[in-house]
Amino acid sequence: MSERFDLAIVGSGPAGLSAALNAKIRKKKFMIFGNKDFSSKLTSAHEINNYLGFYRKSGKELGEEFNNHLKEMDISITEEKINNIYAMGEYFALMVNEKMYEATAIILATGVQYGKLFDGEERLLGKGVGYCATCDAPLYKDKVVTIISYNKHEEAEANFISSIAAKVYYIPMYKEEVEVNSAIEIVRDTPISIEGEDKVGKLKLKDSEIDTDGIFILRDSISPGQLVPGLKIVDNHIEVDRLMSTNIPGCFAAGDVVGAPYQYIKAAGEGNIAALSAVNYIDSISKK
Amino acid sequence: MSERFDLAIVGSGPAGLSAALNAKIRKKKFMIFGNKDFSSKLTSAHEINNYLGFYRKSGKELGEEFNNHLKEMDISITEEKINNIYAMGEYFALMVNEKMYEATAIILATGVQYGKLFDGEERLLGKGVGYCATCDAPLYKDKVVTIISYNKHEEAEANFISSIAAKVYYIPMYKEEVEVNSAIEIVRDTPISIEGEDKVGKLKLKDSEIDTDGIFILRDSISPGQLVPGLKIVDNHIEVDRLMSTNIPGCFAAGDVVGAPYQYIKAAGEGNIAALSAVNYIDSISKK
Ligand SMILES: Cc1cc2nc3c(=O)[nH]c(=O)nc-3n(C[C@H](O)[C@H](O)[C@H](O)COP(=O)(O)OP(=O)(O)OC[C@H]3O[C@@H](n4cnc5c(N)ncnc54)[C@H](O)[C@@H]3O)c2cc1C
Ligand SMILES: Cc1cc2nc3c(=O)[nH]c(=O)nc-3n(C[C@H](O)[C@H](O)[C@H](O)COP(=O)(O)OP(=O)(O)OC[C@H]3O[C@@H](n4cnc5c(N)ncnc54)[C@H](O)[C@@H]3O)c2cc1C
Repeated sequence: MSERFDLAIVGSGPAGLSAALNAKIRKKKFMIFGNKDFSSKLTSAHEINNYLGFYRKSGKELGEEFNNHLKEMDISITEEKINNIYAMGEYFALMVNEKMYEATAIILATGVQYGKLFDGEERLLGKGVGYCATCDAPLYKDKVVTIISYNKHEEAEANFISSIAAKVYYIPMYKEEVEVNSAIEIVRDTPISIEGEDKVGKLKLKDSEIDTDGIFILRDSISPGQLVPGLKIVDNHIEVDRLMSTNIPGCFAAGDVVGAPYQYIKAAGEGNIAALSAVNYIDSISKK
Repeated sequence: MSERFDLAIVGSGPAGLSAALNAKIRKKKFMIFGNKDFSSKLTSAHEINNYLGFYRKSGKELGEEFNNHLKEMDISITEEKINNIYAMGEYFALMVNEKMYEATAIILATGVQYGKLFDGEERLLGKGVGYCATCDAPLYKDKVVTIISYNKHEEAEANFISSIAAKVYYIPMYKEEVEVNSAIEIVRDTPISIEGEDKVGKLKLKDSEIDTDGIFILRDSISPGQLVPGLKIVDNHIEVDRLMSTNIPGCFAAGDVVGAPYQYIKAAGEGNIAALSAVNYIDSISKK
């Protein structure tokens, strides 16, 4: 059986980081999942003037202040992407490829994905379209798999699946150099639409097409409804009350993922609330 | 006719300050009312560890960072206490003793008053108990008035009313030296209860009592329901939706005044949201 944490925080933008500070102060046993550089929404910002206390900082500079804060409080981020979370009643099971973590409460602080879906993506979801290559790999034994990847970190997923599938196409949507197994075919073209009647048959790109059985789209974030089955979503955002509770007991949410305005200090403020609500929930459970 | 502002922010804690940054960035004509030292809830904090980006700062130190931010953005606080706000339909009228300001939208960021009410205070409110001495002064011509004051700034109110009333007792609830007109009698005792059938007759203190026609209790903040008649209050807090709108169009609220948890960055995050909502409201009005 895996170790049970009090709290798992999913996402390392300002919402997740602020939640982590409060979980630490409240002495809970927690993990925070995300990236060491926090969030591309932070690192890519040119100049930030509306985070009270910091003036004319770039996103990188503000990130350094956050980093110092976390270091001083001895908080470190686990660089893993959570693929699925299941509400098990007494706890949540968080899936990271073949690994699983357990936590009494969770905070979803995964941000929003600005990019729009590909044509056919939603219609063929679960019918050849997927978001977690390693999870579904067994389905593609000796078949053709295409990976659309938004992050260099995903190269490991591609390598893994190439050990199972007959053929893997890899479409990098990022600028860094691609380093994957030589068996994988790298395709430098722009995906347009996913085709197929009741299952995926083909990926159309700007200048080419690929016949494929499965397509994995590996974005930095997964839509919250997919991440946590059963979660109530309204207008593409997680529905929360003023204490950042969702419809699932023990599941809290904060930041862009719960709705506009999309702002750093709004996210951080909500992370603070979510953490305190989670602490109350954990304490109430442990008293039973 | 007084000058019309786009926005008036009432309160200078983290919620009000954060709102002001965003009003400035959005180029609105606004005022922020409060104190130059922001908030006693800030200056009195010993060590703050949960405001993301700042570690182990005292409230005073964090306040200095806020001050630098405001200075750089050329925002200054108007040191006046708003006594009453009336929703006039197209605008709000903000009353400061004998002065009046007009604004298209308002943000209430007045914090919470922790101190509890005196015995009899609520029952006799409007029946001799009041919160704005200058407003009600004419009622006490040639009568006896007692002022319970939580702030040295209120000494001016006492001086003003002593020019009208027959007799003024002044009970300082603060530590600073008291400097009032020599006609005013300073009482150094602790108020306990306000007595009277259907109007105020007497103030009982720990070691004495005062026969009086009126009692003004001048705390740093006025309960929001009194400040803005018609505002919907639930469990002693202003009811808001996720965009910080209250039940009155054009009236927004943020910070402790809208509910727990009482936290700096929660207040700042809500101030940010309230300001963006107010900006949308102002823009929608000006398009009509
Ligand atoms: C260029 C730019 C400039 C901006 N400028 C400003 C500005 O000046 N002022 C302002 O207030 N706001 C600004 N914003 C908006 C601001 O960036 C966002 O509102 C803020 O980052 C939201 O924080 P968050 O914590 O909700 O989510 P994010 O910052 O998006 O962080 C979410 C994190 O969670 C991670 N994650 C997602 N899913 C998973 C998973 N399943 N497992 C593990 N980790 C996961 C993501 O990789 C990411 O690191 C700007 C945004 C951009 C893009
Ligand atoms: C000793 C202490 C330690 C704390 N430590 C922490 C901590 O470590 N971390 C944390 O997150 N929180 C802490 N808090 C809580 C935090 O101080 C509050 O949540 C926060 O200050 C709320 O901000 P606010 O902007 O809503 O209101 P406030 O900070 O209360 O500011 C309201 C301001 O509005 C002014 N005002 C009110 N009415 C009027 C009016 N009618 N006209 C003009 N001005 C008006 C007031 O004078 C005041 O200046 C602490 C509080 C205290 C007292």
